[in-house]
Amino acid sequence: MSIRIGILGYGNLGRGIECAIKQNPDMELAAVFTRRDPKSVHILTEGVPVYHVDEAVSKKDEIDVLVLCGGSATDLPEQTPKFAESFNVIDSFDTHARIPEHFANVDAAAKKSNHIAMISVGWDPGMFSLNRVYGSAVLPEGESYTFWGKGVSQGHSDAIRRIEGVLDARQYTIPVESALEAVRAGEQPELSTREKHTRECFVVAKEGADLARIEQEIKTMPNYFADYDTTVHFISKEELMRDHAGIPHGGFVFRSGATGWNKENKHVVEYSLKLDSNPEFTSSVIVAFARAAYRMHQEGMTGCKTVFDVAPAYLSPMSPEELRAHML
Amino acid sequence: MSIRIGILGYGNLGRGIECAIKQNPDMELAAVFTRRDPKSVHILTEGVPVYHVDEAVSKKDEIDVLVLCGGSATDLPEQTPKFAESFNVIDSFDTHARIPEHFANVDAAAKKSNHIAMISVGWDPGMFSLNRVYGSAVLPEGESYTFWGKGVSQGHSDAIRRIEGVLDARQYTIPVESALEAVRAGEQPELSTREKHTRECFVVAKEGADLARIEQEIKTMPNYFADYDTTVHFISKEELMRDHAGIPHGGFVFRSGATGWNKENKHVVEYSLKLDSNPEFTSSVIVAFARAAYRMHQEGMTGCKTVFDVAPAYLSPMSPEELRAHML
Repeated sequence: MSIRIGILGYGNLGRGIECAIKQNPDMELAAVFTRRDPKSVHILTEGVPVYHVDEAVSKKDEIDVLVLCGGSATDLPEQTPKFAESFNVIDSFDTHARIPEHFANVDAAAKKSNHIAMISVGWDPGMFSLNRVYGSAVLPEGESYTFWGKGVSQGHSDAIRRIEGVLDARQYTIPVESALEAVRAGEQPELSTREKHTRECFVVAKEGADLARIEQEIKTMPNYFADYDTTVHFISKEELMRDHAGIPHGGFVFRSGATGWNKENKHVVEYSLKLDSNPEFTSSVIVAFARAAYRMHQEGMTGCKTVFDVAPAYLSPMSPEELRAHML
Repeated sequence: MSIRIGILGYGNLGRGIECAIKQNPDMELAAVFTRRDPKSVHILTEGVPVYHVDEAVSKKDEIDVLVLCGGSATDLPEQTPKFAESFNVIDSFDTHARIPEHFANVDAAAKKSNHIAMISVGWDPGMFSLNRVYGSAVLPEGESYTFWGKGVSQGHSDAIRRIEGVLDARQYTIPVESALEAVRAGEQPELSTREKHTRECFVVAKEGADLARIEQEIKTMPNYFADYDTTVHFISKEELMRDHAGIPHGGFVFRSGATGWNKENKHVVEYSLKLDSNPEFTSSVIVAFARAAYRMHQEGMTGCKTVFDVAPAYLSPMSPEELRAHML
């Protein structure tokens, strides 16, 4: 019997979940829930119902794991504890500073209802977090480094769009090559914010807008750009659509450490991602962890879990015997 | 209270375990066991006893996890099941083809005695295996690639040493750069053995030996060299000692896959290791998994486990709360 997945929220992430389910023969899409008029939402999978979100709880017996595809700012802090009362759930909550609070709320709800609720699944938090933990556990005497990009930052693109005179914008976060090389060489450099990443902005301005003022406002924007070397390119709407329609991302996690009685031997562990589609890769990670959530619940586990709590064998469709014979 | 580690077998790996314990404040070295005369074995840690291996079982109450540092060919198939009767144990059994058989033997012993026995821990099998499982679970439509090197292969060096006229030798396994680049670019190439790795040999020959014959014997040796492009350099004993005394190694695990309704988006996951000392890095991985073995046993788990069965949180000295707050 397939693992029956529900999707709550059908944007980029929800569509990515739908595509990922198609690649996993042990899973099936059971239903999509939306806050919009269900008749207005057209999904890719034939024969699967779209319901209003208010109907979700009434369908709980038809769904093994509900994937929550809302945003971290306002949706998930409310949705994940709420739906953990009725479902095994999984989310991609990515506001790092608020994870402990989110964990506590979700854990209480999931323990009370005897469900598994997995939070903060994706690539950062997610696969990058795993590599930070493996790296630091294996090389305790060392330094960890995370670099992001080259990729589109939605938050930074939005910040540019809020500037007067801007019609649209796309911001790329780019790791500084010389910093990557120094870390890769085992030098364990201390790196400032500016030394780790640069920011490149492609901006469509309104006709007649003051471009010099817009560029100045971007480059001096606190938190978002002021601490970085930022370049701004003004381009046409057509160029933006043609050259910057994708949502690529990626990055690097390094652990650089030393071993030996006198730390005489250096080691560098590097994990990197190059992603054509940030939401689709995030979705693919979520679907693998949804399999784990289902299995862990089958074994009687309950409560809130993160990627740190999941033995890797739970993620794979292979049996433990197959994994040992072919993957170890 | 510290986790008390015992070391059985004091060669390169045993010494590496000793060094790794020093880097982990929650662990202590309790004893070293050797097949040699214990008086002849001088360890680095002050005040820790060295016993003959025959005394090991009598010290079982003083040791939380016994690390078995023997070889995979003959030592571990016998030692791991045997000592799992009296201890939580961990080994680095690396004969991939015989893992299912080893698992079955060790599992029976460990379950009977209510211990945890962790097998095949290190970097391959070990960290590389983990990355193969994570990669294929997260990108089911794709290809996995493992490359080794640049690094010293002990088995290949030994094979050269067995040739008539050879005094000593060191063999490096080297990944083919163009193959790495093709995989990194998401091309999913089909690669033959010869296209993935080259072999470079540094050989010290006896005075007057027939160098042409030695080179020919190396290059045509079945299994070891015949399927590879191999280069042979004859050097002096002094050059070998000066330039090739280290035991570096490393390698790459890639997962290259596609997502999207029509597989329109490509993704490449790359994990790589650059290690100055193969045995010391292996030891560092083992010690982190020894922590996990201890904790899992404390929670009542028993039987044979591999890296696939270990939730990453067990590896870290940090608490679950600290991990979520700082590493997620």
